[in-house]
Amino acid sequence: MTELPPLSPTGRTTLGRKKIRAVTDRATLYSVLDEALICHLGVVRDGVPMVVPTGYGRDGDTLYLHGSTGAASMRKAATGIEVCVTVTLLDGIVYARSVNNHSMNYRSAMVYGEAKPVTEPEAKMHALHVISDHLAPGSWEHARDVNAKEFAAVSVLALDLAEASVKMRAEGPGDEPEDLEANSAWAGVLPVYTVFGEPESDKEVPPVVPVPAHVSGRGAAGR
Amino acid sequence: MTELPPLSPTGRTTLGRKKIRAVTDRATLYSVLDEALICHLGVVRDGVPMVVPTGYGRDGDTLYLHGSTGAASMRKAATGIEVCVTVTLLDGIVYARSVNNHSMNYRSAMVYGEAKPVTEPEAKMHALHVISDHLAPGSWEHARDVNAKEFAAVSVLALDLAEASVKMRAEGPGDEPEDLEANSAWAGVLPVYTVFGEPESDKEVPPVVPVPAHVSGRGAAGR
Repeated sequence: MTELPPLSPTGRTTLGRKKIRAVTDRATLYSVLDEALICHLGVVRDGVPMVVPTGYGRDGDTLYLHGSTGAASMRKAATGIEVCVTVTLLDGIVYARSVNNHSMNYRSAMVYGEAKPVTEPEAKMHALHVISDHLAPGSWEHARDVNAKEFAAVSVLALDLAEASVKMRAEGPGDEPEDLEANSAWAGVLPVYTVFGEPESDKEVPPVVPVPAHVSGRGAAGR
Repeated sequence: MTELPPLSPTGRTTLGRKKIRAVTDRATLYSVLDEALICHLGVVRDGVPMVVPTGYGRDGDTLYLHGSTGAASMRKAATGIEVCVTVTLLDGIVYARSVNNHSMNYRSAMVYGEAKPVTEPEAKMHALHVISDHLAPGSWEHARDVNAKEFAAVSVLALDLAEASVKMRAEGPGDEPEDLEANSAWAGVLPVYTVFGEPESDKEVPPVVPVPAHVSGRGAAGR
């Protein structure tokens, strides 16, 4: 992935905290965004922050955010104000020998930018395809297409991955030398995984209809 | 749980969207906050939103947020501005017979309020205990106590659960009558679970030391 340009941290995406690693390669940004299933979209409304879980999808260096035109957060974002989109994958609970050094292993991407509504029909349909492929790969081909009324009712925002950062922690406990010396408490990592369960067919699906491969064969779950 | 006062939705915590249910009982708010492991803390900095994954804990109607005094989001929040804290549990991917009706099952709590720094020593130690019990129950008793230097370096914010809302979706696909009639695509729910893996002892823990019960016996994982 050496061909990808590095991320360009700005003042607000630069890290100052210890033990948590800032990652500057774009491939890691992509992998975090592609693995997670929801983002938290932050907008400012009436001067106060509003943080809303939102579906999304990524195509290259564009993040598409999905929402009903009735959703306040999407209406607000569509006016062209700056947003902050944060995606977090929790990977483990880190138990240290001291309470103070307990931590979490995680990967988190943060994207700042001006979210712009996608209204040109072809671009909007493409954005919906990208979002659908992210949430439910294979459904775009399997399920009934978006009709004109539905197409008009949905809103999509596009956000450039220009100002983005990734921070992560992926290691064992960072204990103080004296606690390591005493070694009087257990320390380690309790991994956290997100997994898919058994697909549950809707009650109106005839029992003879199998769960299709794009659902039953879905890989590791994102968060 | 009938003794709990209902939540009091304000304009910004009232839902307008279909198929997603607003929950007004306080017990559900508590259960969402207690099950999840991280929140997304939203603050406004230089007029733009900033959304940061943050550890927390709940005691009654107080949410305690944890952070290093060096973290920009915590410094900003400590000045007394309004914050929005959102906690989301993803429960399933909902496959509908049409692409447009695909959805997610989830539970999400949103809390608005003025986050206030907890500085009085006894209250601050209590807050750290609450946060520790949330992230790693049993560690407060097992691991080395917080010392004076560590106590001074950490910052804790308290947020009243006064203005809070919960929205959730916990059902099968909501298909259009004509799609249900045609029944030409599979529909159902792919459950999403967050689980703990096998605890991994730190390499400096002697092999004879077992993983303690407060770690090995930990119940269902939150997100």
